[in-house]
Amino acid sequence: MRCRKCGQKAVIHMRQHRLALCKNHYLEWLPDQTERFIKKYQMFNRHERILVAVSGGKDSLALWDVLWQLGYQVDGLYINLGINADLAYSDLSQEHALAFASARELKLITVNVKQQFGESIPEIAGRERRGQGKTCSICGLVKRHIFNQTAMEYGYDALLTAHNLDDEVAVLLANTLDWSLNRLARGLPVLPAGSGFARKAKPFCRFYERETAAYTFLREIQYIAQECPYAAGSKQLYYKQDLNRWEDEMPGTKLRYYLNYLSALNEGAFPQRQEGPEELAKQRCPVCGQPTITCGLCAFCRLFSK
Amino acid sequence: MRCRKCGQKAVIHMRQHRLALCKNHYLEWLPDQTERFIKKYQMFNRHERILVAVSGGKDSLALWDVLWQLGYQVDGLYINLGINADLAYSDLSQEHALAFASARELKLITVNVKQQFGESIPEIAGRERRGQGKTCSICGLVKRHIFNQTAMEYGYDALLTAHNLDDEVAVLLANTLDWSLNRLARGLPVLPAGSGFARKAKPFCRFYERETAAYTFLREIQYIAQECPYAAGSKQLYYKQDLNRWEDEMPGTKLRYYLNYLSALNEGAFPQRQEGPEELAKQRCPVCGQPTITCGLCAFCRLFSK
Repeated sequence: MRCRKCGQKAVIHMRQHRLALCKNHYLEWLPDQTERFIKKYQMFNRHERILVAVSGGKDSLALWDVLWQLGYQVDGLYINLGINADLAYSDLSQEHALAFASARELKLITVNVKQQFGESIPEIAGRERRGQGKTCSICGLVKRHIFNQTAMEYGYDALLTAHNLDDEVAVLLANTLDWSLNRLARGLPVLPAGSGFARKAKPFCRFYERETAAYTFLREIQYIAQECPYAAGSKQLYYKQDLNRWEDEMPGTKLRYYLNYLSALNEGAFPQRQEGPEELAKQRCPVCGQPTITCGLCAFCRLFSK
Repeated sequence: MRCRKCGQKAVIHMRQHRLALCKNHYLEWLPDQTERFIKKYQMFNRHERILVAVSGGKDSLALWDVLWQLGYQVDGLYINLGINADLAYSDLSQEHALAFASARELKLITVNVKQQFGESIPEIAGRERRGQGKTCSICGLVKRHIFNQTAMEYGYDALLTAHNLDDEVAVLLANTLDWSLNRLARGLPVLPAGSGFARKAKPFCRFYERETAAYTFLREIQYIAQECPYAAGSKQLYYKQDLNRWEDEMPGTKLRYYLNYLSALNEGAFPQRQEGPEELAKQRCPVCGQPTITCGLCAFCRLFSK
């Protein structure tokens, strides 16, 4: 297989685009495409200060790298969740995030959940009575809270996550199986700021996971290769397997699924539910000051007040 | 496992309902539930004349049997598609439909596609240039046309098909993967009559396939057990396998998926597309007189005019 642009040996073939590229042209193509998505979905611009949520994994470091190369004013936010049992998952991933930032002289904000709030994610999960997947749901709640609080406190214009197409369609499949209209109405690549919530954007939402993986590999970015030990057996991984099989047998399935969904949203498929937390969160938490839909403590502060 | 109603040995356990029943109580339960769905979704009543599309398979004969037992004014419609290659699929299924009707002294209308229109389904498919699954799509078009034409000509109040929950969720999954808004807006258990189209209803839409199979078996109804030879490799069968696996691992998945979808429709999801063929089909075909969205011949008459 040859590069479509120069005829050199290709390093990647993207069946859904019928496009093969060599290393150099791929390392141009992925940032070019990212720039295209940022503009297309009006995510942010070069005058704005943006914050990327960095886990130390391949997608978030690749996103930070791409935005830095493209000349955006982008800082990183790393949250140490205290997941350090058999594998020192959190500490190792923090090292990768720190090494990445210092090599490029980029600013990394670090929050340590245990040091700052008194308990690690596994410790909270250990005392909470929730069903299956409780660790992941608690972790999601804690991260969303800290992401937003940090973005608001430091005055960033947008908060970015590195969700890729594989992530987005797995969530989409789960949400269509449940017909969660609130969630289905809000699966956009960018969500505007409002009522104490920062603008959120996902510049990698149209890249397959193998595309971001190839980028990270070719750029020789060091990252934590292990999955979080709590992710095993999650519903998202379960649906990812099915989606991978469909993609293998019908190339382009995931991208079509996602793009057709965005068109459906654009055509007003879920009109009643366009209001999300921004519109619903009329109250402020008396402890942290963040918006909440309930009277009294927000879900995050309730978690730590027990 | 014991019957919840009488304590006798149960013949079926429906995990999603946490309900086990003996033969006699199951043979009461399924018609009772059917009656409940007919009323709940306002499908039709005992003063109306209804027509059930009968394939000779287990679901459609079970539906006819249930409606006959419940005292509805129900006739059958059998379409011989001329699928008689290695296996005399059409002729065998016709025999089952005829035997069923004559044993109960029920009226069965029979249409033979080859005799009436000059070509069988495989013959049409053989000369048509369509992609994968073309035989199934042509067959669907022909059946829908004949169903509607017959229902209208004979003045039936409603046309019924025996789609079960497994059928409905497989179509639903395919439609969400494509985000076909028109189809998603119209996956209701009953669609009203309008502009030359008969009312359509699916009284078995909430039964798992194994439930209608158990009913057919326990009632000792003879049916064609073989699948249509063209169904092998269809996308619907493909998605059914995935849905079956999800159901095995998370009992109730299919029913929740379908009921949550109906709730979503009820809450106004897909509003732009509530208009279906009824609203769109402003023209009449000059040959058959049936409604069509195009000027000139309808799709059915175009198929046979080539």
